[in-house]
Amino acid sequence: MRAGGSRSKAMATLFRGGSVLNPGLEDRVVEADVLVEDSRVAGVRSGLHAGDDFDVVDCEGLLLLPGFVQTHVHVCQTLWRNLSDDLPLMEWLRGWTWPMEAAHDADSMRASARLGFAELLLSGTTTVNDMGSVRHTDVIVEEARTMGIRGQFARVLMDDHDGPKALLDDPDAAVKESLALADHFHDPSAGTRIALAPRFAVSSSLRLLELVAAAAEDRNLMVHTHCAETKEEVRLTEGRFGMRPIALFQALGLMNENLLMAHCVHTSPTEHESIAVGGASVLHCPTTNLKLGSGTAPIMDMMKAGVRVSLGADGAACNNNLSMFREARTASLLQKGLHGPDCLPAWDVLRMATMDGATALGMGDEIGTIEAGKFADIVVLDPHRCCSVPFDDPAGAIVYSMGPSNVLHVMVGGRMVVRDGLLITADVEEVMTEAQEASLRLRKRAGL
Amino acid sequence: MRAGGSRSKAMATLFRGGSVLNPGLEDRVVEADVLVEDSRVAGVRSGLHAGDDFDVVDCEGLLLLPGFVQTHVHVCQTLWRNLSDDLPLMEWLRGWTWPMEAAHDADSMRASARLGFAELLLSGTTTVNDMGSVRHTDVIVEEARTMGIRGQFARVLMDDHDGPKALLDDPDAAVKESLALADHFHDPSAGTRIALAPRFAVSSSLRLLELVAAAAEDRNLMVHTHCAETKEEVRLTEGRFGMRPIALFQALGLMNENLLMAHCVHTSPTEHESIAVGGASVLHCPTTNLKLGSGTAPIMDMMKAGVRVSLGADGAACNNNLSMFREARTASLLQKGLHGPDCLPAWDVLRMATMDGATALGMGDEIGTIEAGKFADIVVLDPHRCCSVPFDDPAGAIVYSMGPSNVLHVMVGGRMVVRDGLLITADVEEVMTEAQEASLRLRKRAGL
Repeated sequence: MRAGGSRSKAMATLFRGGSVLNPGLEDRVVEADVLVEDSRVAGVRSGLHAGDDFDVVDCEGLLLLPGFVQTHVHVCQTLWRNLSDDLPLMEWLRGWTWPMEAAHDADSMRASARLGFAELLLSGTTTVNDMGSVRHTDVIVEEARTMGIRGQFARVLMDDHDGPKALLDDPDAAVKESLALADHFHDPSAGTRIALAPRFAVSSSLRLLELVAAAAEDRNLMVHTHCAETKEEVRLTEGRFGMRPIALFQALGLMNENLLMAHCVHTSPTEHESIAVGGASVLHCPTTNLKLGSGTAPIMDMMKAGVRVSLGADGAACNNNLSMFREARTASLLQKGLHGPDCLPAWDVLRMATMDGATALGMGDEIGTIEAGKFADIVVLDPHRCCSVPFDDPAGAIVYSMGPSNVLHVMVGGRMVVRDGLLITADVEEVMTEAQEASLRLRKRAGL
Repeated sequence: MRAGGSRSKAMATLFRGGSVLNPGLEDRVVEADVLVEDSRVAGVRSGLHAGDDFDVVDCEGLLLLPGFVQTHVHVCQTLWRNLSDDLPLMEWLRGWTWPMEAAHDADSMRASARLGFAELLLSGTTTVNDMGSVRHTDVIVEEARTMGIRGQFARVLMDDHDGPKALLDDPDAAVKESLALADHFHDPSAGTRIALAPRFAVSSSLRLLELVAAAAEDRNLMVHTHCAETKEEVRLTEGRFGMRPIALFQALGLMNENLLMAHCVHTSPTEHESIAVGGASVLHCPTTNLKLGSGTAPIMDMMKAGVRVSLGADGAACNNNLSMFREARTASLLQKGLHGPDCLPAWDVLRMATMDGATALGMGDEIGTIEAGKFADIVVLDPHRCCSVPFDDPAGAIVYSMGPSNVLHVMVGGRMVVRDGLLITADVEEVMTEAQEASLRLRKRAGL
């Protein structure tokens, strides 16, 4: 499985002869070569010259797409995929996810992250916004770097809930730990970021949320949380804080461009106005919302109000798959089913899956399109598969027909991480075997 | 791509050491060997002995599932995949599907069918209920036999519509042609069947529907049609016949076990009672219904009323993919999103995708489960993929996590058609190239 290792060390790569797709630009399709030097795109135009020591990738008949940006995942939950189906959110959290997170040790966290990143890279995701657990976030960041995926990472914060004691934070110590992670890992210029992540209002004290708001402002860090995922969550938030989640975040001074709110299934047009005015982002996770019976987020209304909506697969334990192809298609199909077949056409949903995700994470100048100067985060797709032939409009083909089997090469920051469909930054067989074994041990520790 | 040709000729095959899944039986999971002699399963039990000339397939750690049964597809439409997105049904029919069907010649029909069957087999579908066009149904049946997929096939019937003249049938001649196809191909004992297929009420005269009803009863043939797919279709049917589609089919004497109605998105609880009492089947196509903006069929209410619901991907031109994994997952997720997370759990939707489809097609005694005496229609799945590890409940893993990349081997009627993920009854590269070229020519002929 470790193919192409030597090639991946080349300092310059030339992707020759493909169609370059940029859902986030006006010129969405150009036939061009793409030159990558070190970690960044050096040029996008026809007839680029390859030096002797260049790695030349023949892209004749292939599509180059900016890497997918998933703005809401939990790679710490990959180990309980296929173990916790057919449950509503709170039962799923209390019955599986909290006990399993509480039982995580560094080894199981490593196995969980590695499996998640392997699946994400092999299906074309190059950047994630990940919410971890209360411990071992450092392990997640290390594995992201080893396997070559870009991301923003966060230690989850939860200090007021009826879950396992091992997940019960002291608010001051927990925020301090998050800031220590930021001291160690936060490096926007290298594409690794640390966020603050109160799980949701329902597991937070007011003091925790206030500490988060102060630290986020003080350090210019993003805040990654769940918001209005279920009716029950909204009701519990109202019971605890006397207001709905959106009003709460607004009252705390959090409603700004640094706020990343996953789900927002149960929000109103008035709330969408507040989100848009504040500049916060909604992280849409359509599969999870269906699977946990939460409903479908009103994203057409949000977008009409000017809210930035991006996409995420959420955790493998509630999806149960991490492919962006699936999320993009599900997002588009749901809106068509609800509001008509011309809603959320393929180019729009591809922009959500790339550029809008980059903008949400404050990385719009660095990733999200294939342009000179940006990080070289590039997915090469082969449309020549039974599921996607005949081939005409590339966006429609990607969203409605393709899947991970169409992913041929993946580059992150100039480093080739998938080549000819094979992961080259980890041994996939080893990753899967370790994950299967770690899952069994974790389950035993959790008593499940 | 033509691997394992000689092996596929073995008269006996032993699948050794896998987990045999039968969503349609009480014993849903048994660890057993499966012996296949000629076209049928000879035994399902542990410790079966392999003769010297047996093809022994090592299934240690693998899952054996009855082949998927798709009860509503149109392989004649595969050539305009990715060409007709974001349109409502009637615009899609008038703007693309009718002109393209009208322009089909035998060669383009052959290319379309071959591409569709290749994708279907590679993703584990072993039986289809296919609705063709007004011409070249014989080509579809021939290619199904060549490529090794089982099915029920039908010449579409449409004698009263504003579509292309080339699709305007004379009702008597058209039904006569369908019966000639039945004379030639209908052979339930070999697993090939012919049905009668008035496209939908909106493109039919009363005379055509009456001829179909009489011929179906006379020859004991099934009737395959579209029903209540959109509100507009229901309205147009009421305008033409003075009643809604379900009442119309009932008035014609068609509401019995031989009636296969695709979609039924806009039907009422009272209509579900009628369908259940009559014993007709609903063919649920959730992706198409979303993509064309038709809505979501009320299948929970149908099933509560006792209606048999099975699944189909519909055509590649309105889906745009033919994988049953996708339909099964979408069906389950939609009902969870609408009615709660415990709706349509994985085993139930897998039964819809196998045994319920077999029963709908009147083939419940021949296919739908892996049992001694039935045709050997078997899919071998490898759960050891990044997207489906860790692995625990097999049904959940198949429905929520897996996709075509998990399909390792496929057998239809004792004939191995996919081995180690490769199609062995056709050259896939050739199939794709021919389809791409035929699509361009067809489009030119249709002036699109």
